[in-house]
Amino acid sequence: MYISESSLRVRYGETDKMDFVYHGNYLIYYHYARNEFLREMGISEKEIEEQGVLMPVIEVKIKYSQPAFYDDILTIKTHLKKTSGIKLHFVCDIYNNNNELINKGETVLTFVDNKTRKAIRPPKNIIDVIIPFMS
Amino acid sequence: MYISESSLRVRYGETDKMDFVYHGNYLIYYHYARNEFLREMGISEKEIEEQGVLMPVIEVKIKYSQPAFYDDILTIKTHLKKTSGIKLHFVCDIYNNNNELINKGETVLTFVDNKTRKAIRPPKNIIDVIIPFMS
Amino acid sequence: MYISESSLRVRYGETDKMDFVYHGNYLIYYHYARNEFLREMGISEKEIEEQGVLMPVIEVKIKYSQPAFYDDILTIKTHLKKTSGIKLHFVCDIYNNNNELINKGETVLTFVDNKTRKAIRPPKNIIDVIIPFMS
Amino acid sequence: MYISESSLRVRYGETDKMDFVYHGNYLIYYHYARNEFLREMGISEKEIEEQGVLMPVIEVKIKYSQPAFYDDILTIKTHLKKTSGIKLHFVCDIYNNNNELINKGETVLTFVDNKTRKAIRPPKNIIDVIIPFMS
Repeated sequence: MYISESSLRVRYGETDKMDFVYHGNYLIYYHYARNEFLREMGISEKEIEEQGVLMPVIEVKIKYSQPAFYDDILTIKTHLKKTSGIKLHFVCDIYNNNNELINKGETVLTFVDNKTRKAIRPPKNIIDVIIPFMS
Repeated sequence: MYISESSLRVRYGETDKMDFVYHGNYLIYYHYARNEFLREMGISEKEIEEQGVLMPVIEVKIKYSQPAFYDDILTIKTHLKKTSGIKLHFVCDIYNNNNELINKGETVLTFVDNKTRKAIRPPKNIIDVIIPFMS
Repeated sequence: MYISESSLRVRYGETDKMDFVYHGNYLIYYHYARNEFLREMGISEKEIEEQGVLMPVIEVKIKYSQPAFYDDILTIKTHLKKTSGIKLHFVCDIYNNNNELINKGETVLTFVDNKTRKAIRPPKNIIDVIIPFMS
Repeated sequence: MYISESSLRVRYGETDKMDFVYHGNYLIYYHYARNEFLREMGISEKEIEEQGVLMPVIEVKIKYSQPAFYDDILTIKTHLKKTSGIKLHFVCDIYNNNNELINKGETVLTFVDNKTRKAIRPPKNIIDVIIPFMS
C-alpha cells in the first residue's frame, strides 16, 4: 500500500471558540493531502483542471477522535482505496505531535468535464498512473 | 418527524475556482442549520456552552449530488435521527432555488465538559426537550 | 447620503480561539453588505460577472474597536464614498446587538474584463445607477 | 531592517470563483507570516496566550496589485515598523512564483489581558526581544 505523508501547521484562523481546529476545516487539510499524494505520482490537480477536467468531491466520511490545537504540526497519511477506477477514494489519517490518530477522513472524487459539467471517465494518462497505487 | 427549515444565501468567499461552493463549506451551513433547529426547541448552543458544555462533532457523512452557486438562496431541512440520547444525530438536506436536493449531510455530536474535556451525559434540561423530536 | 442596512448572525466557524470572530472574516461580512447595497440599487454582482466583468477588491482598510461573538446579530451600515467613478469605495460600519460600532471597513473595488483580466471603465448601466448614491 | 521570509502554497479552498485567492484569505497568510517572524525571535504566539495575553489585530491596511492562483508558492517578507512599543505594526509583502509583489498588508496588534479583556502593556520579556528588530 502506497502511503503519502504530508504535514502542515495549524493556523490561528482555523481554530474556533472551542479552542481547537473547527471540524469543517479538516476538509481543507484532506484536500491538501490528496494533492500532495497526486503530486508524488507526478500529477497536478491544477494541470488536470487546465486540461478541462474537474475533480469534485461527491462523498465525505469523517470520524474525529481528538482535537488539534493552534500551532500543532499535523501529519497526514494518505492512501487510495481500490475502486473500479471511475472514482478516486482517498483515505486520510491525521496524526498530532504525539503521533496520536486524531481523525480519519475519506473523500470520494469523480471526474467532470469543465465545459459540459457532466461526469466523464478519468483521463487515461491520470488513471494509468494512479491505478497501481490503489490498495 | 419534526423538520426545521432554514435558509441562507451563498457568499462570494464560500465559492472556489470551480465556480461553486467549496465542498468543505457545507459543514458551516449544516452547523448553522443545527443551531436553528435547536433554537426552535428553545435551546441555544451559545447558552449550553456558557453552562460549561461543549458539543463537538465526532462524525460526518456527506453525499453531494449538485453544486450550489454564488448568491443562490439555499433551503436546509434538518431533522434528528433517533439515537440512545447520548449523542445527537442530525440530518441536513440542502435544496437549491429550484427545490432540487443538492446534498445531504449527517453530523453526530457528543457532549463534553468544557473543563475536563471529557465526554459527559447530555444536560437533562436539553435532552428532555430534544428526545421527543427524534425520529 | 444613502445608507444600506443589512444584518447577519455570527456563525460558529467564524470564531477563533480568542472566543470571538476571527478578524479576517469581516472581509466576508463587508462583501455581503456591499452586495446587499448593490442589490438595493437593482444591481447584482452575479449578473455583472455573467456579463464578463469582475469587481476585484484592490484596497482594504479596517479599524477594529470591539469584538463580535458567536450567535451575535450584527448590523452593517454601508455607504459609498464619492470617487471619480472608476472605482467604487465602500464604507461598512458594523454594529453589535447593543448598537455599538465594533469595526469600520473600507474596501475599494475596481472593474476588470474577465477575459483580458485588464482594468476597464465600469459598465455604463452600472455606474449611472450608482453615481447618484455616492456621497 | 530585519526581514523574515516565509512561504506557503495556495490551497484550493482559498480560491474563489474569480479563479484566484479570495481577497479576505490574505489575512490568514499575514497572520501565519507574523507568527513565523515571532518564532524566529524565539517567541510563540501560542505561549503568549498560555500566559494570559492575547494579541488582537486592531488595524489592517492592504493594497492588492496582482492575484495569486491555486497551487502557487507564495513568499512573504515580513518586517516590523518602529512604534512606541505598545503596539506591534507588521508589514507583509507577498511575492508570487515570479518574484512579483502581489500585495502588501499592514496589521497592527495590541496586547490584551485574557481575563479582563482590557488593553495592557506588552509583557517585558516579549517587547525587550522585539524592539531591536523594529525599523
